[in-house]
Amino acid sequence: MMHYEKQGMVVTDIRRASAADAQTLARFGVATVHEAMGRQGLMQPSMRPIYPGATLCGSAVTALVHPGDNWMLHVVAEQIRPGDVVVVACTANNTDGMFGDLLATSFKALGAVGLVIDAGVRDVAEIAAIPFPVFSTAIHARGTVKATLGSVNIPVICAGALVQPGDIVLADADGVVVVPLARVSEVIAAAEIRAALETTKRAKLAAGELSLDLYNMRPALQAAGLTYIRQSDLREE
Amino acid sequence: MMHYEKQGMVVTDIRRASAADAQTLARFGVATVHEAMGRQGLMQPSMRPIYPGATLCGSAVTALVHPGDNWMLHVVAEQIRPGDVVVVACTANNTDGMFGDLLATSFKALGAVGLVIDAGVRDVAEIAAIPFPVFSTAIHARGTVKATLGSVNIPVICAGALVQPGDIVLADADGVVVVPLARVSEVIAAAEIRAALETTKRAKLAAGELSLDLYNMRPALQAAGLTYIRQSDLREE
Amino acid sequence: MMHYEKQGMVVTDIRRASAADAQTLARFGVATVHEAMGRQGLMQPSMRPIYPGATLCGSAVTALVHPGDNWMLHVVAEQIRPGDVVVVACTANNTDGMFGDLLATSFKALGAVGLVIDAGVRDVAEIAAIPFPVFSTAIHARGTVKATLGSVNIPVICAGALVQPGDIVLADADGVVVVPLARVSEVIAAAEIRAALETTKRAKLAAGELSLDLYNMRPALQAAGLTYIRQSDLREE
Amino acid sequence: MMHYEKQGMVVTDIRRASAADAQTLARFGVATVHEAMGRQGLMQPSMRPIYPGATLCGSAVTALVHPGDNWMLHVVAEQIRPGDVVVVACTANNTDGMFGDLLATSFKALGAVGLVIDAGVRDVAEIAAIPFPVFSTAIHARGTVKATLGSVNIPVICAGALVQPGDIVLADADGVVVVPLARVSEVIAAAEIRAALETTKRAKLAAGELSLDLYNMRPALQAAGLTYIRQSDLREE
Amino acid sequence: MMHYEKQGMVVTDIRRASAADAQTLARFGVATVHEAMGRQGLMQPSMRPIYPGATLCGSAVTALVHPGDNWMLHVVAEQIRPGDVVVVACTANNTDGMFGDLLATSFKALGAVGLVIDAGVRDVAEIAAIPFPVFSTAIHARGTVKATLGSVNIPVICAGALVQPGDIVLADADGVVVVPLARVSEVIAAAEIRAALETTKRAKLAAGELSLDLYNMRPALQAAGLTYIRQSDLREE
Amino acid sequence: MMHYEKQGMVVTDIRRASAADAQTLARFGVATVHEAMGRQGLMQPSMRPIYPGATLCGSAVTALVHPGDNWMLHVVAEQIRPGDVVVVACTANNTDGMFGDLLATSFKALGAVGLVIDAGVRDVAEIAAIPFPVFSTAIHARGTVKATLGSVNIPVICAGALVQPGDIVLADADGVVVVPLARVSEVIAAAEIRAALETTKRAKLAAGELSLDLYNMRPALQAAGLTYIRQSDLREE
Repeated sequence: MMHYEKQGMVVTDIRRASAADAQTLARFGVATVHEAMGRQGLMQPSMRPIYPGATLCGSAVTALVHPGDNWMLHVVAEQIRPGDVVVVACTANNTDGMFGDLLATSFKALGAVGLVIDAGVRDVAEIAAIPFPVFSTAIHARGTVKATLGSVNIPVICAGALVQPGDIVLADADGVVVVPLARVSEVIAAAEIRAALETTKRAKLAAGELSLDLYNMRPALQAAGLTYIRQSDLREE
Repeated sequence: MMHYEKQGMVVTDIRRASAADAQTLARFGVATVHEAMGRQGLMQPSMRPIYPGATLCGSAVTALVHPGDNWMLHVVAEQIRPGDVVVVACTANNTDGMFGDLLATSFKALGAVGLVIDAGVRDVAEIAAIPFPVFSTAIHARGTVKATLGSVNIPVICAGALVQPGDIVLADADGVVVVPLARVSEVIAAAEIRAALETTKRAKLAAGELSLDLYNMRPALQAAGLTYIRQSDLREE
Repeated sequence: MMHYEKQGMVVTDIRRASAADAQTLARFGVATVHEAMGRQGLMQPSMRPIYPGATLCGSAVTALVHPGDNWMLHVVAEQIRPGDVVVVACTANNTDGMFGDLLATSFKALGAVGLVIDAGVRDVAEIAAIPFPVFSTAIHARGTVKATLGSVNIPVICAGALVQPGDIVLADADGVVVVPLARVSEVIAAAEIRAALETTKRAKLAAGELSLDLYNMRPALQAAGLTYIRQSDLREE
Repeated sequence: MMHYEKQGMVVTDIRRASAADAQTLARFGVATVHEAMGRQGLMQPSMRPIYPGATLCGSAVTALVHPGDNWMLHVVAEQIRPGDVVVVACTANNTDGMFGDLLATSFKALGAVGLVIDAGVRDVAEIAAIPFPVFSTAIHARGTVKATLGSVNIPVICAGALVQPGDIVLADADGVVVVPLARVSEVIAAAEIRAALETTKRAKLAAGELSLDLYNMRPALQAAGLTYIRQSDLREE
Repeated sequence: MMHYEKQGMVVTDIRRASAADAQTLARFGVATVHEAMGRQGLMQPSMRPIYPGATLCGSAVTALVHPGDNWMLHVVAEQIRPGDVVVVACTANNTDGMFGDLLATSFKALGAVGLVIDAGVRDVAEIAAIPFPVFSTAIHARGTVKATLGSVNIPVICAGALVQPGDIVLADADGVVVVPLARVSEVIAAAEIRAALETTKRAKLAAGELSLDLYNMRPALQAAGLTYIRQSDLREE
Repeated sequence: MMHYEKQGMVVTDIRRASAADAQTLARFGVATVHEAMGRQGLMQPSMRPIYPGATLCGSAVTALVHPGDNWMLHVVAEQIRPGDVVVVACTANNTDGMFGDLLATSFKALGAVGLVIDAGVRDVAEIAAIPFPVFSTAIHARGTVKATLGSVNIPVICAGALVQPGDIVLADADGVVVVPLARVSEVIAAAEIRAALETTKRAKLAAGELSLDLYNMRPALQAAGLTYIRQSDLREE
C-alpha cells in the first residue's frame, strides 16, 4: 500500500465502515478511542477545529493536493456518500484557504459530515453558521488555483497520521484520531471497557479518593525511590 | 515610496478613502475582497482577531514601532479621525503587550474603528467588553517602554502586507486585507460581480449539483490525465 | 535554591501565601500585577487558557515531569490544599495530554483552583464543563505513561518563569504571572496604586483627552527629534 | 499494515533491499530519486544532517520510541545487519538527545551506515569525528530514560514519511527520501533516465541557452496570458 | 506602486544600479549598510545562506511565484543581466525546492551573481560546488510544477522587505538588506563614515578601553537611575 | 533570590568559580556534565553556536536586557574578569543583533571567554575570525538602541535555564549547561566517574558487544512484555 506509481488517480467505490460503528465510536471521544487503539492513530496537535464545539465522525474519503491548489477538492466531492468525512493531505506545509463556504455547502448537500484538512480554510464564520464541522491546520483567506492533479481515495499521511480510504475518522476538541477499518470492532470493544472503568474512577476521585490509592501507585513509586521531606527540614542553601 | 531617510517623522493630513467606500467593502468580507484584488494584499495568517466575532473596516493610519516600545501608539492617537483603523508594524518580531484597555478607550473615543498590530496586546477581556476590534499576532501581558522614536503615517510592512496611509484595511475571521486607495473603486466593482456569482453558485451547490459540473471542470481534468479506478480493481501489493 | 541533587523528591508542608492575599491579587488581573512587580514574573505567551474565560489565582504546588509521563501529577495531588494552583514544568517541550477530566475531577475535589502546565492537556470539553481552569501550552489527546520519577514542590521553570512552591500564581486571558511569596504585600500595595491611577486615566481618555497630553509626552518627543510634516508637503519620489 | 494491535513487538528477519540497489540509488541523490518516484516519499524539511557532508543510503530497520525514552534504540541495535539505516520515529515531537557517541560506535560496529531520527541527538562533534552519518530533527544534550516499550521493525511515520522495514532510505544535503522495497527497480530505471537527461540539459544551460527555449515553455506561457511590458511604458501611479 | 491589477506581467528593460555602486556597497557588509540606511531594509532572520561563506551583491530582478510552482523562475532568467541578483517572493509560506543546480547553472551562465528566495531550494551541495550564492528560507528536495502565472520585475515583499526591481540587494552571513535605487549614493556615503568610525573604535576597544567610556554612556546611565551594589551587600532573602 | 524589586541594578564583586574548576569541567563536554548534574541545568535546543566548533566554559556574569536594546551589554563589559562568560537574557523573545564584532573585540580584550545570549547577534563572520565563541538563539543584522535600563549580575532565566552570577556555564555543539557554584565539586566528581565508565563501554561497543548485554537490559525488557516475531510469521492484513 502507499506504493502508487501514478498521480492523478481517483479510486471509486471504496469500502467503508458502517454508519452504526461510526455512531458508536463518536460516543467515546478522541482521547478514549486513541487509548483503546493502544495509543495510536492520532494526528498532530496542530490540527484544530475552526469553531468551538465542532466534532465529526465518519468514514474517510481522502484527497492528496498540492500547495496553493484545491482542484482535487472538487474531484473528491463526487466520491462523497452520506456519512463520509473528507480528509485532505497536502504535499507540502501550506496555509492557503483551500476550502470555503461554497465547498462546505456542496459537501454538506452531498452528505458529508465534516472535513479534516492539513492546510488552510476560509469563510470560517459562514462555515460555522451552516454549521459544517471542519478541522484544519490553518485559517487564511488566500485563494487557490486549480491547475495540478493530485489523487483521491489513496492512502495519505495527514498531519502525521496514516489515513486509508474507509477508515473511521473521529474529531473533537482534543484532536483527530483515525481508526483503521480492520480494527473498528476491536477498538469499540476496548473503548467500551475503558469508558465503563472511567465512570467508576470519576466517582471515586470526585469523592476525594487519591489516584495514588485508586491506582495503587505507592509501591511502584517507593520502589523507584520517591522520597518525602518536609520543607522545614530542607537544608539551607 | 518607502524611501524615508529619517525616522521620527509624523505625516499629518493624509488622504483617506471615503467612509462610504469602507462601508461598501465591509459587506463583502476579506476572502471576497482579496479575490477581487487579484489575490493580493493579504496579511499573513498569524494575524488573528483577539476575540471571536471581531471585524473592522476603515482607512489606515499607520505607525512603525520598535520591539518592546509603544511610544508611537500615543503619537498616532492624535492622527486618528473617525472611521480610521490604526495599523502598527514593528521593526522586529515582538509579542509584548503594546496595547491595552486604556489605549483602546482612547482610540475609540477618538473615532477609531479598530486596530491591526504585528505585535502583542493585553487587557483582551476588557477590550472585548468595550468592544474595540483588534487583530494582533500575539496576546501577552508584558508591558512596554516609551523610549525610542518610530514614525507615523509612513508606508509600513505589517504581517507581510504593504500598508500605505489612507489605504482601506478590512479584517474578519479569515484574516486582514489591504486595499490601496487608488484601487478602491475597481475592487468594489469586482467584488460586487463576484458576490453576485457566489449567490447563484451557492444555491446550485446546496441543491446537490457537483462543482465539477457547475464549473465544467471535467474536460480539463481529463486532459490533465485524471483516471478513475474501482477500489476492487486495484492490484494487490 | 534550584540546586537539588536528587530527583524523585516530594517536599511537603510548604509555606503558602494567605487565601486573602490571593483573593486580593485576583482582583487586579495579570497585566496590572506584572506591572506592579516591576515587569517581572510573566510566563511566555505560549501559555494559554484552554477555554474562554478561564482565570485562576492561588498558591503554587509544583511538579517537574518528563515528556510523555504524568506520574508526578498523581503524586502532586496528595499535596494539594484548598486554594492551591498546581504548576507543572516539563524537562523538555512536550505536547502530550498529561492531564484530563479524571485528574481535573480529583484536583477539584481536593480543593485546587486550577492548573498551569507547560505541556498538553486533553478532555478539554469535559474540563470546561466542570469547570476547572487550566492554562497549558498545548491541547492534545495523546496519553502518557507513568514510568519515571520527577519531583514535587521544588522550584521549577515553567514557560520561562521561575515558580517556587507557595508563590502566588495568577492567570487570566492575558497570560500567567508569578508573585514570589516574599513580595506579595509589596505587590498588592503597588497594584492598588496603579489600579487607582488607571481608573482616573480611563475616564479622561474616554472623554477624548490625548494620552500625549495626559502623560505630558510632548516635550520628550520633541527632545528626541520627532517632526511633523503634512502629507501634501512630502517631496515626490 | 500499520494495524499492529500490540506495542512492544520486535519483528526479526525482515526482507531487505539488495546492497547493489542501495549503491545504485545512492549515486542519484535525494532530489533525483524523489522525482523518479513521482514526487513521493520525502521526509519533511525539518530533517537535517547533523554535520556538513553527511549522506547515507541503505535498508531501513525501524524503531518507534516515546518522547524522552531511548530504550528501543538498544533493542533495534540487535536487528542491524551490514548496510542498514536505522530509522527512528517518536510518538510525539521531542528534541531530547536520544542518540550519542556510544550508540553511534555500537551501530557502526554492527554495520549500520547511518541513522535517521525524528528527535534529538547529542555528542554531535564526536559522531562527526567517527564519522557516522546522522539526520535528525534536533540537536540537544538532554539525556533520556529507558522505561517504556516501543516497537522495532514495524511501519512508522518518520518526519511525515511512511517507512516500512526493508525500504531503501537515502539522505543527503537536500533531505531524506524513502523508496519502498517493491518499487526499487522501477525507481532506479526512472532515475537513470532522468539523470541522463539532466546531463544534457546542464550543458545547454551552461552554454547560455534559456530554459524557456530548452523546455519549449513559451507557447504555454502565452496561452496562460503572460504579457511583457517595458518599465518605461508602465503608467505612473 | 504595488498596485498592479494584473498578474502574469513581465516588466522588461528595468533601470538598475551601477555595477560600481554594487561593488562599493559589497565592501561594507549587511550590518553596516543597514545602519547606514537608518536601520531599514532588512529581510527577516529566517533568510539564510545555503552554504557557509555565501555572499552576494547586485541589482534585483524580481519574481513573484505561487507555492509549489517555479514557472516564473524560468521566465525571470531571460531578464537577467550580468551583475543581477534574482529575488523571489512567494504568495504563501512554502518550503518546496523551487531552485536546483540546473537553474543555478543557467542563472550563472546568464550573469547572475546570486539568488534570494523566500521558499526552498535543492541540490545545495551541487550549487555550493559551482559556487552560486543562494539565500533561502528553506532547503528541501521537493520538486515543483509549472502551472500558474506569477509576475516578473514587479515590486515584491520578500521575507518582510520591499524589493523593487533595480534596487541593490546585499547578503552575507548576517542576513539580507535591500537598498532602494534612489538611496544608493546616500547610503554609500553614510556607510563610509560609519565604517571609518568603526575602525577607530575597534582599535580602542581592542586596547581594553570600555565602551562605556568610549561612547560616554555613564551620564545617561546615571540619569536613568542605574545603581551599583556589591554582591556582599545584597540583603539576604 | 530572583526577588529583586528594582530594575537598573548592577551587582559588582560577585563570587566566581575557580578557573581550575572551569578548565576541569570543560574537558567533559555538555552532555556528560548535564548527566553528572542529574540531568539538570540545560538551556533549550534553540541556543546554538554561531560558528562550527565554538566552545566555551567559564564563570557567568549576567545581563538582563529588553528587546531591541543592548545598553546593558556595555554595562556588563566593565564587570568582566578574565575567564568569564557573559550570559544575556531578554525580557521577550527577540532576534535583533544585539552583539557584533566591536563588542566581541571589547569582551575579548577584557578577558571574556565567550558569550551566551538569548537574542540575536551580527557580524558573525568577523566574530568567527577573531575567534570569540558565541552561542545565540538568532543571527540577524538588525541594530539595537541604548535606551532602557536592565540589570547586571542578577539571576536570569536564559533559554529556559536559571543562571546565577558566578555559576559555571559550559557550551559546545550539543548545547549549553549551567553548573551552580555550590555544586561544582560534586558535578566534577560525578562527571569523572561517568567519563571513565564511558571509555570502557565505548571499547566494548566498538568490538561489537550489544548494549542490550552490556547494560543487562534483557530481563527488564522481557518483564515489560517485549516480544519477538519473525516477519514471515506475521499474519497478513
